[in-house]
Amino acid sequence: MLGTMQHWPLLCTKILDHAALQHGGRPIVSRSCEGPIHHTTYADLRARALRAAQRLDRHGIRLGDRCATLAWNTWRHLEVWYGLLGIGAVYHTVNPRLFPDQIAWIINDAADRLLFVDLTFLPIVEKIAAALPTVERIVVLTDAAHMPATSLANAVAYEDWLAEADGDFAWRAFDENTAAGMCYTSGTTGHPKGVVYSHRSNVLHAWMAATPDMMGIGAADVVMPVVPMFHANCWSLAFTAPLTGAGLVLPGGRLDGAAVHEMLEAYGVTFTAAVPTVWLMLLQHLEATGGNLTSLKRVVIGGSACPRAITEKFLKRYGVEVRHAWGMTEMSPLGTICTPKPETRPADDEAWLDLQVKQGSPPFGVEMKITDDEDRPLPHDGKTFGRLKVRGPAVAESYFKGTGAESFDAEHWFDTGDVATIDPYGYMQITDRAKDVIKSGGEWISSIDLENLAVGHPDVAEAAVIGIAHPKWDERPLLVVVPRKDREPSKESILGFMEGKIARWWMPDDVVVVPEIPHTATGKIQKTTLREQFRDYRFPGTS
Amino acid sequence: MLGTMQHWPLLCTKILDHAALQHGGRPIVSRSCEGPIHHTTYADLRARALRAAQRLDRHGIRLGDRCATLAWNTWRHLEVWYGLLGIGAVYHTVNPRLFPDQIAWIINDAADRLLFVDLTFLPIVEKIAAALPTVERIVVLTDAAHMPATSLANAVAYEDWLAEADGDFAWRAFDENTAAGMCYTSGTTGHPKGVVYSHRSNVLHAWMAATPDMMGIGAADVVMPVVPMFHANCWSLAFTAPLTGAGLVLPGGRLDGAAVHEMLEAYGVTFTAAVPTVWLMLLQHLEATGGNLTSLKRVVIGGSACPRAITEKFLKRYGVEVRHAWGMTEMSPLGTICTPKPETRPADDEAWLDLQVKQGSPPFGVEMKITDDEDRPLPHDGKTFGRLKVRGPAVAESYFKGTGAESFDAEHWFDTGDVATIDPYGYMQITDRAKDVIKSGGEWISSIDLENLAVGHPDVAEAAVIGIAHPKWDERPLLVVVPRKDREPSKESILGFMEGKIARWWMPDDVVVVPEIPHTATGKIQKTTLREQFRDYRFPGTS
Repeated sequence: MLGTMQHWPLLCTKILDHAALQHGGRPIVSRSCEGPIHHTTYADLRARALRAAQRLDRHGIRLGDRCATLAWNTWRHLEVWYGLLGIGAVYHTVNPRLFPDQIAWIINDAADRLLFVDLTFLPIVEKIAAALPTVERIVVLTDAAHMPATSLANAVAYEDWLAEADGDFAWRAFDENTAAGMCYTSGTTGHPKGVVYSHRSNVLHAWMAATPDMMGIGAADVVMPVVPMFHANCWSLAFTAPLTGAGLVLPGGRLDGAAVHEMLEAYGVTFTAAVPTVWLMLLQHLEATGGNLTSLKRVVIGGSACPRAITEKFLKRYGVEVRHAWGMTEMSPLGTICTPKPETRPADDEAWLDLQVKQGSPPFGVEMKITDDEDRPLPHDGKTFGRLKVRGPAVAESYFKGTGAESFDAEHWFDTGDVATIDPYGYMQITDRAKDVIKSGGEWISSIDLENLAVGHPDVAEAAVIGIAHPKWDERPLLVVVPRKDREPSKESILGFMEGKIARWWMPDDVVVVPEIPHTATGKIQKTTLREQFRDYRFPGTS
Repeated sequence: MLGTMQHWPLLCTKILDHAALQHGGRPIVSRSCEGPIHHTTYADLRARALRAAQRLDRHGIRLGDRCATLAWNTWRHLEVWYGLLGIGAVYHTVNPRLFPDQIAWIINDAADRLLFVDLTFLPIVEKIAAALPTVERIVVLTDAAHMPATSLANAVAYEDWLAEADGDFAWRAFDENTAAGMCYTSGTTGHPKGVVYSHRSNVLHAWMAATPDMMGIGAADVVMPVVPMFHANCWSLAFTAPLTGAGLVLPGGRLDGAAVHEMLEAYGVTFTAAVPTVWLMLLQHLEATGGNLTSLKRVVIGGSACPRAITEKFLKRYGVEVRHAWGMTEMSPLGTICTPKPETRPADDEAWLDLQVKQGSPPFGVEMKITDDEDRPLPHDGKTFGRLKVRGPAVAESYFKGTGAESFDAEHWFDTGDVATIDPYGYMQITDRAKDVIKSGGEWISSIDLENLAVGHPDVAEAAVIGIAHPKWDERPLLVVVPRKDREPSKESILGFMEGKIARWWMPDDVVVVPEIPHTATGKIQKTTLREQFRDYRFPGTS
């Protein structure tokens, strides 16, 4: 027996319809790529998104067709998303920070038919256009007056292209499991893998994100997604803000401390979200200028672990609540947010700041467990760490074209590739990447914990820990350090510094001082290369 | 092309799984029907619900089977809900305040196989048991020690019945559109009609309800649903509280001011919800005893229009925020909640209290429009009123067995039977029931507005307005009043009091003073009977 409730498919455009009708005059403020600040509203954005949908349809873009965007957060980028969504086509955000040949590979893998590009990124496209056989037209997100000379024969200014439609159009209807958006994960090995969000997953995820203990966004909020729309589905904010009727402030391409501060203050932002680096830049800017945060209430920080010092500075100096978050492109991306529960909120702010270094607990809609290598569940004691696996309606069950199948098991658990602890209250803390953890005598040692400890030594600038094969223990940790300028730390001094601060069997078997450690394009330590460099290394006394 | 996201069916038991894992120790406090206060947790409630599911399965209850409950809000009632949900059976809440023959009719229409009943309502069941051929067993929600002597041969104490299962059981899996719960609407005409909630509608509705501008419930809240579980799906609180990890306080069968106050204060309730009558009783109790509300922050008031005086008293005397709400059994039930938007929140509390007499605006997931009798949409100007129609994933698209089909159109709009205005900010205000509105010369006159005005006259105790056929205007309003004790208001005095306060053409054509006005079992004015009484009435000067 089925319920007698309506078949009301969960389509992303219904979110924009709701915002336009119930919160039609709410402002959307953008820093344009041309320079000036641009103002619009949900009602006007919807009208232009309908024109975009009509124009896409007229081009022949059909259900399931992918179109790429290489763009900052602006109203035009948002219009393109909703225009594509309105005809069942797929917004495919491409990260412009990737190397040009990676960008080309991704666009070709997705077989994108159109490419929407900001003025900023036009030079990249000019470089790779010849290698993009599926791209039929390049739409530059500007108007005729700002359209630059370009070598691209098939380029058109967005405003000219859009003007060819009159907006007399209605959203198309289709199944809620239809593809909505696409984002490639940049793995450290192999080709990037495409994650394909559905309308359903985006809508469910937006509801999850809106709830009080997750992002807690309401109509009185003004939301600034500093996190780019090309980063992990914009952390849901392109959907959660209109779903709740919150105003939007879109920072365009200027993410330095001064520019972010200007937008926060000028437009009364109450809620923002981005990676720790952005907030470090903002806090440095505020310190240098004596600036303040007069409207901001909450900031969600994720993408990588948020240092306690940032959380503390926001809270104590500026009265802003930090919500430490963790997620993945494969999870739409929200996994956990660290907000207090009655049992976990100490009266003492210091104790709560200590707890906030954890990534937090999941909302309803995200299932989470830690397992050992044989997939046996591990206890939630806050100490035992294991492979972090997740499940839920906004979690991927495969990648585009079926690549990366080894990450998914028969019961739909997705192996995040992270290693984590979960405490009795459900708070998860990432301790390592699974491929970086050191497996010593059947037990695991966190490379990140050792690195964090080693960089506390006054003469150490950077540290990386890798596992080296060991005849008895299987693997043992090797600590590789880069000294601070004009310092020469000794092995003994470093080990002496670490001793007593970690379990005895976690102590590195050796320390090697090197002039530099290899990094990825996004600044992370490239452990695959490091392991390659130390392929023939053996610990003293082992063969 | 479909998304690559997981098929994770939206099942109600996943909400309880989440609460047990992430908020397992959160308290659930109940006033038992036996008297004492009972304490449990989400983790323990889940364990017992699993036993209930296993016991139901052992009885032979199968997917889609209905089981009735005649019970107050207690932990046992909640266990039974989740037990039934866990095997795909249907919790069918029956309102014990109905007449016994109505109760029997509803149970027979639903063909309930089991009947779970509180001690309080056992006498009703004893009276009607012989007329319930589908009911195989009656489970009395108590333990052996409190099991009374009963004429029912097939009755068993719940705790004995439950003890026959050991809890070694797993929730069954099925389609998310499977029937989950059932509630009959008590229309003023014809037989009651069954609304069948699905797992999907309950889950989506719980997310909607949790968002900040709707109920805004988080893990730090302690939620007391004073609204009974048998009233309109418990306003979602049996799902929203565990979804968010909020604690629960269940008031059992004592809903008087003193009992409600005791629970609010003793268990740190922060959020509660019920009809205006309950809050009137509480406020009177507080006034009489000088009591206070030390933990309560928000109270949702719906079921009928909330008078400004209640909202004002809560805010000014006790510092409690009232959220005026409107919904229907057919809507799971949430339709609108009156919370401020940046454009609508005046700095002045008085102006905001004035605005709060409106029922508010809908969340994402509830579409709403007003139309004239020809289904033409009417403007959202806050003045024009029309038939209120709604649509959404938690709105019914039919009734059980296909009755009442005239309320649903081809585009899934459900005609609520209410007449309302919608203002430019999306705030809806109920002005009348569609069948009570007076249609005069093609325009509508709100009977409720006239009644509210008339009872302001110092000599009028109660007022009802009905439409009387008129040769020129089709219908004109007749005002029927009951005088206050020992008063004799004249027609002239009443009309003189009303004059200038409403449009001239809204003025009643006549006033009739009567000793009493007929009421329904739930205390509402029975306008059908009143219209019957005045069937032969003609206005002075008309034939």
